[in-house]
Amino acid sequence: MTARVIDGKATAAALRERIAGEVVRFRDAHGRAPGLAVVLVGDDPASTVYVRSKGKATLEAGMESFEHKLPADTGEKELLELVDRLNDDPAVDGILIQLPLPRHIDADKVLTRIDPDKDVDGFHPLNAGRLAVGLDGFVACTPLGCLKLLRAERGDLSGLNAVVIGRSNIVGKPMAQLLLAESCTVTIAHSRTHDLPAVVRGADIVVAAVGRPEMVKGDWLKPDATVIDVGINRIEAEEDGKGRLVGDVDFASASVVAGAISPVPGGVGPMTIACLIRNTLVSAARRHGFSLPEDL
Amino acid sequence: MTARVIDGKATAAALRERIAGEVVRFRDAHGRAPGLAVVLVGDDPASTVYVRSKGKATLEAGMESFEHKLPADTGEKELLELVDRLNDDPAVDGILIQLPLPRHIDADKVLTRIDPDKDVDGFHPLNAGRLAVGLDGFVACTPLGCLKLLRAERGDLSGLNAVVIGRSNIVGKPMAQLLLAESCTVTIAHSRTHDLPAVVRGADIVVAAVGRPEMVKGDWLKPDATVIDVGINRIEAEEDGKGRLVGDVDFASASVVAGAISPVPGGVGPMTIACLIRNTLVSAARRHGFSLPEDL
Repeated sequence: MTARVIDGKATAAALRERIAGEVVRFRDAHGRAPGLAVVLVGDDPASTVYVRSKGKATLEAGMESFEHKLPADTGEKELLELVDRLNDDPAVDGILIQLPLPRHIDADKVLTRIDPDKDVDGFHPLNAGRLAVGLDGFVACTPLGCLKLLRAERGDLSGLNAVVIGRSNIVGKPMAQLLLAESCTVTIAHSRTHDLPAVVRGADIVVAAVGRPEMVKGDWLKPDATVIDVGINRIEAEEDGKGRLVGDVDFASASVVAGAISPVPGGVGPMTIACLIRNTLVSAARRHGFSLPEDL
Repeated sequence: MTARVIDGKATAAALRERIAGEVVRFRDAHGRAPGLAVVLVGDDPASTVYVRSKGKATLEAGMESFEHKLPADTGEKELLELVDRLNDDPAVDGILIQLPLPRHIDADKVLTRIDPDKDVDGFHPLNAGRLAVGLDGFVACTPLGCLKLLRAERGDLSGLNAVVIGRSNIVGKPMAQLLLAESCTVTIAHSRTHDLPAVVRGADIVVAAVGRPEMVKGDWLKPDATVIDVGINRIEAEEDGKGRLVGDVDFASASVVAGAISPVPGGVGPMTIACLIRNTLVSAARRHGFSLPEDL
């Protein structure tokens, strides 16, 4: 058997096109486009690339992008004041602080300063709590993107056994909450789990988010399982010395057993940015009582 | 084999005694006792009993108890104004709104109006979120009490397989978060779970919180499992027509297989009130920078 490859690029492109259509409707109704403010402190090369691609996607969706690039030695107080200004700015519907922040800045303090109703990254503890108790809020973009891929692949997830490997605040934990809300039986596994292969073998759905290259092997999987690979790990290629990107799942062996699997790259990654744009539109819509399609 | 019976009454009494000792220290240092405000709207008989026993436990711990009993036709606005006053009152460290509220009052609106730093019930979404992301906050009293019983019984829980049956906001979900923070591999099962007995059979720790009398049977259990029964269900006795209380676990069959099991009554129930008192003391201590033993 060969697994279907879950095309995150195509699903994300379709989602972004739908969003762009809604943005036109929103702009016609309210005379402005939704706006996303992205704050980058310092010049970490990876962060710079991420910020650039987020800005590009924002503009392509017809939204406004506000980029704030601050020097690495920016003080915490100055950054908090910028957050306050963005919180108060009616043109800004979403605020994203690119992580990691320099060490002299308390990231928790900055992230909890963001107005939870503009927290399109879903990292504010109030949004984590809203997700947990089932209130409207913002869900972190990566797990939201994974859920959209799973729904597109499997439809109704109710009653399926889901295993989430990894318990980070930005992927594993919110992913578990989302799957629970879909009425999956959810298991959260992590580095302390005994006999992880046995745990994974019971799963109809596996979401791997541990940051360990090719850790999940094909013989860990239940035949026909749906596998979502969140990992993005750069490893050295043996032949030419150039790095290549691999996920947390050993694609070669897993794709022989799984029913469907998301590749790395081209799986979860494109969905994350599409969901950021989606959350920004949702924020604008909520602030104006503008209604959006429920499945957006 | 016969399971050890986990004595919640004794564990709760010991906890309450420790709390009372800390309250004396707190009062000596700050010239006042920690205070808990309990608000009851209407005269539901069960709620009246709960409020009375909470007030009694508060006083027995040497704390101040402020009871606010309002008529059933109290308006939402009036109740919100009371919450605002309690939020502002420096003598009040904890605020508890007894549920259920009458139908004409939006309970979510009232619960989210409570200052999260006085929310000793841990029901505010910000506290649910703090628990999820690992920040200090308040954890709902019933799951916190269950965790204390589990720690007393098993010590370090790291790496154990835990199954939580039930996904309510006040028990199942926070219980799962707590067990995850203890580094258990956590599975959340519920009414949509396929083959619940098979799921439970893999568990070293079972927490049952579904509200179905004697649902979990002994032959579902792994030998030597630790079973915490959160259910409190009144069933008709066959002989004398009087009701009796049973848990969600079939005690008779379970106690033959389990290593340890909490009874109903006398298991989780007493721990819930002890944890409410504990949370109130913790709130007072945080507000004054007063340090408490870490394991309290």
